[in-house]
Amino acid sequence: MKLWDKGYALDRELEAFTTADDPLLDRELVRWDCAASIAHARMLARCGILSEDEAEKLAGELRAIAADAQAGNFTIEFEDEDCHTAIEKRLVGRLGDLGKKVHTARSRNDQVIAALRLWAKDALHTLFAATLDLAASLRQFAETHRDLPMVGRTHTQVAMPSSVGLWAGAWCESLLDDLRILRTAYEVNDQCPLGSAASYGVPLAIDREFTSQVLGFARLQNNVLYANNSRGKIEAVILGACAQIAIDLSRMAQDLINFSLPEFGYFRIPEELCTGSSIMPQKRNPCGLELVRARASAIIACHDQILGIIKALPSGYNRDFQETKRPFLHGLKTTIACVRVMKLTVEKLEVNEARILDAFTPEVFATDEALRLVAEGVPFRDAYRQVAASLDKLQAADPRQAIANRTQPGGPANLRLEVADEAIVGFGEFLQSERDAFQQTINALLGR
Amino acid sequence: MKLWDKGYALDRELEAFTTADDPLLDRELVRWDCAASIAHARMLARCGILSEDEAEKLAGELRAIAADAQAGNFTIEFEDEDCHTAIEKRLVGRLGDLGKKVHTARSRNDQVIAALRLWAKDALHTLFAATLDLAASLRQFAETHRDLPMVGRTHTQVAMPSSVGLWAGAWCESLLDDLRILRTAYEVNDQCPLGSAASYGVPLAIDREFTSQVLGFARLQNNVLYANNSRGKIEAVILGACAQIAIDLSRMAQDLINFSLPEFGYFRIPEELCTGSSIMPQKRNPCGLELVRARASAIIACHDQILGIIKALPSGYNRDFQETKRPFLHGLKTTIACVRVMKLTVEKLEVNEARILDAFTPEVFATDEALRLVAEGVPFRDAYRQVAASLDKLQAADPRQAIANRTQPGGPANLRLEVADEAIVGFGEFLQSERDAFQQTINALLGR
Amino acid sequence: MKLWDKGYALDRELEAFTTADDPLLDRELVRWDCAASIAHARMLARCGILSEDEAEKLAGELRAIAADAQAGNFTIEFEDEDCHTAIEKRLVGRLGDLGKKVHTARSRNDQVIAALRLWAKDALHTLFAATLDLAASLRQFAETHRDLPMVGRTHTQVAMPSSVGLWAGAWCESLLDDLRILRTAYEVNDQCPLGSAASYGVPLAIDREFTSQVLGFARLQNNVLYANNSRGKIEAVILGACAQIAIDLSRMAQDLINFSLPEFGYFRIPEELCTGSSIMPQKRNPCGLELVRARASAIIACHDQILGIIKALPSGYNRDFQETKRPFLHGLKTTIACVRVMKLTVEKLEVNEARILDAFTPEVFATDEALRLVAEGVPFRDAYRQVAASLDKLQAADPRQAIANRTQPGGPANLRLEVADEAIVGFGEFLQSERDAFQQTINALLGR
Amino acid sequence: MKLWDKGYALDRELEAFTTADDPLLDRELVRWDCAASIAHARMLARCGILSEDEAEKLAGELRAIAADAQAGNFTIEFEDEDCHTAIEKRLVGRLGDLGKKVHTARSRNDQVIAALRLWAKDALHTLFAATLDLAASLRQFAETHRDLPMVGRTHTQVAMPSSVGLWAGAWCESLLDDLRILRTAYEVNDQCPLGSAASYGVPLAIDREFTSQVLGFARLQNNVLYANNSRGKIEAVILGACAQIAIDLSRMAQDLINFSLPEFGYFRIPEELCTGSSIMPQKRNPCGLELVRARASAIIACHDQILGIIKALPSGYNRDFQETKRPFLHGLKTTIACVRVMKLTVEKLEVNEARILDAFTPEVFATDEALRLVAEGVPFRDAYRQVAASLDKLQAADPRQAIANRTQPGGPANLRLEVADEAIVGFGEFLQSERDAFQQTINALLGR
Repeated sequence: MKLWDKGYALDRELEAFTTADDPLLDRELVRWDCAASIAHARMLARCGILSEDEAEKLAGELRAIAADAQAGNFTIEFEDEDCHTAIEKRLVGRLGDLGKKVHTARSRNDQVIAALRLWAKDALHTLFAATLDLAASLRQFAETHRDLPMVGRTHTQVAMPSSVGLWAGAWCESLLDDLRILRTAYEVNDQCPLGSAASYGVPLAIDREFTSQVLGFARLQNNVLYANNSRGKIEAVILGACAQIAIDLSRMAQDLINFSLPEFGYFRIPEELCTGSSIMPQKRNPCGLELVRARASAIIACHDQILGIIKALPSGYNRDFQETKRPFLHGLKTTIACVRVMKLTVEKLEVNEARILDAFTPEVFATDEALRLVAEGVPFRDAYRQVAASLDKLQAADPRQAIANRTQPGGPANLRLEVADEAIVGFGEFLQSERDAFQQTINALLGR
Repeated sequence: MKLWDKGYALDRELEAFTTADDPLLDRELVRWDCAASIAHARMLARCGILSEDEAEKLAGELRAIAADAQAGNFTIEFEDEDCHTAIEKRLVGRLGDLGKKVHTARSRNDQVIAALRLWAKDALHTLFAATLDLAASLRQFAETHRDLPMVGRTHTQVAMPSSVGLWAGAWCESLLDDLRILRTAYEVNDQCPLGSAASYGVPLAIDREFTSQVLGFARLQNNVLYANNSRGKIEAVILGACAQIAIDLSRMAQDLINFSLPEFGYFRIPEELCTGSSIMPQKRNPCGLELVRARASAIIACHDQILGIIKALPSGYNRDFQETKRPFLHGLKTTIACVRVMKLTVEKLEVNEARILDAFTPEVFATDEALRLVAEGVPFRDAYRQVAASLDKLQAADPRQAIANRTQPGGPANLRLEVADEAIVGFGEFLQSERDAFQQTINALLGR
Repeated sequence: MKLWDKGYALDRELEAFTTADDPLLDRELVRWDCAASIAHARMLARCGILSEDEAEKLAGELRAIAADAQAGNFTIEFEDEDCHTAIEKRLVGRLGDLGKKVHTARSRNDQVIAALRLWAKDALHTLFAATLDLAASLRQFAETHRDLPMVGRTHTQVAMPSSVGLWAGAWCESLLDDLRILRTAYEVNDQCPLGSAASYGVPLAIDREFTSQVLGFARLQNNVLYANNSRGKIEAVILGACAQIAIDLSRMAQDLINFSLPEFGYFRIPEELCTGSSIMPQKRNPCGLELVRARASAIIACHDQILGIIKALPSGYNRDFQETKRPFLHGLKTTIACVRVMKLTVEKLEVNEARILDAFTPEVFATDEALRLVAEGVPFRDAYRQVAASLDKLQAADPRQAIANRTQPGGPANLRLEVADEAIVGFGEFLQSERDAFQQTINALLGR
Repeated sequence: MKLWDKGYALDRELEAFTTADDPLLDRELVRWDCAASIAHARMLARCGILSEDEAEKLAGELRAIAADAQAGNFTIEFEDEDCHTAIEKRLVGRLGDLGKKVHTARSRNDQVIAALRLWAKDALHTLFAATLDLAASLRQFAETHRDLPMVGRTHTQVAMPSSVGLWAGAWCESLLDDLRILRTAYEVNDQCPLGSAASYGVPLAIDREFTSQVLGFARLQNNVLYANNSRGKIEAVILGACAQIAIDLSRMAQDLINFSLPEFGYFRIPEELCTGSSIMPQKRNPCGLELVRARASAIIACHDQILGIIKALPSGYNRDFQETKRPFLHGLKTTIACVRVMKLTVEKLEVNEARILDAFTPEVFATDEALRLVAEGVPFRDAYRQVAASLDKLQAADPRQAIANRTQPGGPANLRLEVADEAIVGFGEFLQSERDAFQQTINALLGR
């Protein structure tokens, strides 16, 4: 029986259409919905709407449901529509009339938003940690290969002397900017919607601040209509940050695919990270990297789907919001998986120093030659044309010397990895403090 | 053991990342892969690479697998990666060395493309039929309410006299144009990739035309590299056509949501197509229509994901293609479901004639008044300004008379539903002929 | 003075916001709006709403406007909002009251749609011709290098023996499938919306079929509401076809960027198609190809913008449609420019046979070796593992011999370019017949 | 003559293709490029690469160019490709060899990034201010109509008692969250790329920190390759924040379009913000709001175009980046225009209290009735079903009383506008401090 059952039967085809794969998707939300319901019940007790004893009984059963779900023993039937109905059904089944009281002063949408926010906090801790790990791996890779010259490229073609350290440091810093964006997305998510009911609050004196604090949110999402309007919006903000990470990964993946081609041979992706072909015995394909590249488009599509859904949607809850759940869960989980695979790859990447150095053909040094003429007093534009006119006379120079000359801040000879270090430490502290507090709060609620 | 097993173990995390949810998605492809493999085996026999007896043994086992899959008795393990490996494993398990021969002169990607093309043919028959049904329902609705005046709107606001028939006829004709686009997508899909192997053919004298004919494809996809390059591309072409349908549905849904608001009351969506609220007892929400609206964005996102993946991808197979499977299957199936729900809605829609007629306020007739002045010899632009200056003196007129005057082709009084009829008949014949031929071919292969 | 002027002043900021860059964009539409207005005036005369003499006077002045526009002597002021107002203003200025009559029985949106359809027909002829030219160039390139072996790649890495001819033939066939889609988009566009007025027709006995024929449309767009609902939709259909072409070009561009890297050296893009760097004297950058690659994303974005705008838009004209004009014009013109640059590139591409042949390392032949074992009776899967286990013993073979063995239809030794030829001829005939008829019709109207 | 001229002529078609509309777009960048070049010249002097006198001469001429550009007297010819070439050409024309020296130790891409960052800082100040103004207008509107009940809606349909204040407050708070995101985007943009040259730095001891400080950037973008990799990325981050604002505006616009329909009549958009129809004399169309709605899709498309371009792009400068300029400028400027039009609309919106109150039908109070039963001891789910079963007996209640009961934080009777106030003040201080400092810096450089 659905929460909104009023005695008439829904057309079966429509029921399938509206339920869609919520029973499947909601498996991940059970735990978070239970936590939110415990907080809600406690608040109802605090406000005298439930007795303390009732709240405790509800909390006890909700804890049991969360534990069952963790153990794989809580199923959401198609007829239940979603986890919220399944949970309320179990509460009513076990606790009778008391179970029917838990929905006082809230709406299902209220619950969905709260559960998604909690799920997201948890998932964002994981993504934050994974991205920080990857940034640290790149920083380490940059440190290790700080002095190894590598041809720098523009337009994919050879450009100027660069280094392996510069390459890795660039992606490290890019990810650190992503973390800055991700942190803001995290903060926007970290507000409690509960008590907003079906968008307009309820005519009951409930204590929304209390619920928010019990669940460990940084703040209450104030306006109850905004709490509902922000469904989809905050998911999109988070996926927007994920898209930035995913784009960075796709570009790193493209670099590594190129640099490990036999024609380059700079890097080698170890066997255990390569898959084979069903027909070509010799193949060792960089499938992980190709999927990282492709999944950037999946994550962008998840983001765009949500924006497409919420654009021009009227205020207040609309069923359209349901359709944002799948891309949100899928997009965020995919980003985590991509980051982890990239970290694995960076850590296991084999560097072929000889091939890297072999690539330093004379043309790599053309700009250096022009600047040498500038040092002799030739205006830059004239020096440029002079070198361009006699490219065939260019000499290869010592790659190590060439990068040693690039001493400006952030240049190959002056990577200033300490800039990244400072950010890594800062983000690490932020993450640890947030994650610890959150886990303690949730464990306290769910009784672990 | 994977098809490409060479004796080393893949990193477990990478394995999970590359396998993703293929085992789940591929459930739908087993039947089609079996059909394609039977055709491939027969071709190998025809070319003397297998004996006729070997081909028949393979076909027998493949038929059994297809039947098991239909009955839910064929499972694809995570370790199998996908249905193709699972099927080859079963063939080897049951037929020994013979099972190992079926992969001669093809690649797994070859198989994937072929299975997806066959799956798509089948799904497109379903979508084509459902869309044609919806067009026919709208045409019927237009016929039934041909003479019922309804306020025509621009900018959502009241504009001019129109009719319920015009409204329904408009969406009917829009869907018929969509079917034109869908038919082209169908035809582009209807080419056989088999024998293209890993993109470059094989050094064996195989008969690709034969395989194509046995599977009932309209033509062989000629260039073997193009066969592989077109993965993703053809999926995107199909989803592009789906997106057109989905956009039409989203707009129809928006109209129906508006027109069934209490403030309008033109239409009423019957109870069995409405869901309720968990908190508000009075609600009867048009959830089906809202989800049709939202899922248009899902379908567009599926399309865009594929375009994003294949943009700038180098020639030949890339693992990125795997990531196009999920949006393709999901997007096409979602379109079918949306079309069906819309047909259900149109057929059950209740029309409130009184409310529809009540909406004819005087301002609806402003343009008619201006044109009446034109008939008296006033230049249009002057008549326009004259009416604009005395809007408060406008009189309401008889809505039925107002639409009776709109006799130009395609106008409210001259819907010319025969234009749609002709297209409906034409598409119906096309569909029936295609579907019958395909089902006979597949049944012959799979032995039903 | 605006067409809809009623004596009050619009807020200046809002006016700038709603007018946007229409005066600029509409420069291209003047000619087409004049042609449509001539046809409309003739129809009004035929129906007795104007006299023949009036229609001829209007036609004369409209022809003069079109000629002025061609010569750059017709300007659209910001105050005019768009070309339609500017043209009506000129008609009134020159012809007095007669000028005010031309808008009888139509709306501005009616005009916009008609002008865009005509503009699109013309632009699609150009795109069709350019794409056909490119397909023919690729077919010629394939013919010229039919027997030149090139390493075939999967996952960007070396895979199997292939040929330059196969590569070029693949993209040729891909474009021919695009043309199939483009032709359908063309046909969907080729219907006349005129007489639909503001979405609901007019209470006048006008002859819409006549207008449609005079303008050379293939058919009348029947339902007058559909005529308006289809704004944006048909633009998106056309840009969907453009996106397919653009994606193909982006992939071809990626191939050429890769193959012309110094590490590959298969192709060389001649100097006159390369730009330089402002700082690096040696650079010859494949900027045209990079921009072709990037502009695929621009074209997709134009397509998506339109889908995003029309999704869930209510029936009847909405101002939102205005915002589809810019991406439509920009997307279609960008596609034409990309196709032309790619044709230029293909035609001038220099082929380095020696570097192409040098790339045939032993591993390219691994599959051939496995299939040799199959020919000796080893089951394929065993042969595969046998070769995989002794990759270091693989021998390089003769590339020309290797591709000579690939004789299956569509394989390197059997390109069957006649398949492409047939399509090229068919599309060429279609194009010529359509273009000739259209130009005659328009010239007759505009008096050239 | 182009910066990279080496004595050969570029194909004219390719030249047009690569130059595209840069000469037009770059008009806005001249001022910022001049400022950046002055800073660069001063840094070169500081490092002894130029003399102080040379730097001052360059600065003087650059100031003159900026002034000319401001006055509309500096044109960028098609042959110049972009503003950077045009400026260097003028420097050389006026200063001879000295002009040729300014490009020492930088690349054109370096310049483009720097100019775009400065342009963006300025535009973001404008957007920030406009959004803050709109938030303040909404806050004021909420205050003014704090006690005016309005039917709250879910699924567009009537749901529960709400208020005009709650509606306005919701969008105010939503925009304040957007500003949080925008501020992060601003901070990510606020780093100086100069001195990164063509991605790999230069073999000269330049002082990048100095240039960064002279230009008033918050920090130096450290890694020189990251500085180049981040082109497109940071633009996308900014447009991602714009998209959030645009989505909010599109939803507000949709609400206002609905609420000002004659069927609702809650609000009236004043005449000066409405456009008319060319054919229907009575029309007053909410065109500004419809374009705000449509342009949300334009802004999203700009964002997606950039993501599509940079996805999987190799490290280092690629010409693809050029194609991100147009959507970046267009998307950001469009967002500003939309915010301003929305502010105009909110400020001039006329509220029809009588119509708003008339809309309170009995069903609006169904939930209140259920909760009344809960207060009497009925479990919520039972009360819900009881009310659902006797909807026809529901009584209308006093709307003002109904919202007075909603006293929970953020509910209709307890909007807590001080939450918004605090944020508005904080953002205002941030903006003022940033803008003042920036304008002083730029004025100092450009000598105003």
